[in-house]
Amino acid sequence: MATRLVEALREKGFSFATAESCTGGAVSQAVTSVAGCSDVMRGGVVAYDNCVKAGVLGVPAAVIAEHGAVSREVAEYMVRGVSRLLDAECAVATTGVAGPGGGTPDKPVGTVWIAAKARDEVAVRLLSLEDKGRINNIKQTVIEVLGLAEELLCRTLFSENKK
Amino acid sequence: MATRLVEALREKGFSFATAESCTGGAVSQAVTSVAGCSDVMRGGVVAYDNCVKAGVLGVPAAVIAEHGAVSREVAEYMVRGVSRLLDAECAVATTGVAGPGGGTPDKPVGTVWIAAKARDEVAVRLLSLEDKGRINNIKQTVIEVLGLAEELLCRTLFSENKK
Repeated sequence: MATRLVEALREKGFSFATAESCTGGAVSQAVTSVAGCSDVMRGGVVAYDNCVKAGVLGVPAAVIAEHGAVSREVAEYMVRGVSRLLDAECAVATTGVAGPGGGTPDKPVGTVWIAAKARDEVAVRLLSLEDKGRINNIKQTVIEVLGLAEELLCRTLFSENKK
Repeated sequence: MATRLVEALREKGFSFATAESCTGGAVSQAVTSVAGCSDVMRGGVVAYDNCVKAGVLGVPAAVIAEHGAVSREVAEYMVRGVSRLLDAECAVATTGVAGPGGGTPDKPVGTVWIAAKARDEVAVRLLSLEDKGRINNIKQTVIEVLGLAEELLCRTLFSENKK
């Protein structure tokens, strides 16, 4: 999947960046495991602590306080922030509860928000993963967010070709 | 190894950050695969492109131009930069040639500089890995840099206990 995404990015001449909370670098690691990814890969920010989300990615502290770190709003700010910070045409973001701790009745383990951005288009999606343990929850999130980026990229390419 | 490092960090009350070029997020991913790592993990920067090394981590462009991205100097600037940016007492950095491309006679595939910082102490080390393919080169670098951080942390703890 990462290989397919790198090829799609290269074809379009899009650069790529990641902003990861619950996946902790696993998305970036998947993309950079592809040989030759440096054509498109700018880099990423692992924003594990909320102070990194705010201080580096520019997610307003008030938004984190109001909606929580695991929220649609924070996922969207993260993807926009990293895209701007690393000057990347395409970016992704993840924020969720990978477990085993951290779950609440409202946001149980497996609650994950993912986001992707391609040029001006942003897509945000809620995953309610069946909790299969921390490592598997992270892996599943990586698959989903790479898929979302590819989907968005195809749509963007398609709409640009139509013009 | 990551579990041991997280325990050592927690024991000391040190926060942790990563600055990764050739490992592309694999170090951060290893540390965040440990449940409960959020006690110590601030986050990290995947500085794949040189513009991220310079623009986000503050590695002077002149240093990159003079010594190359794969150098002792850049590794040291990266670890100091991420430690400052994410306000972490302990940090690590990696910059190297994971392959299969990118090797030169001077810096063949498997040439990797790693760095670790604990409080004011910095250790930088050159790895000359036997090239066992990109994925294995990355894995080996993760093991080496986690080991270097643990080593430095033990030394720092030891010298602080002596005071």
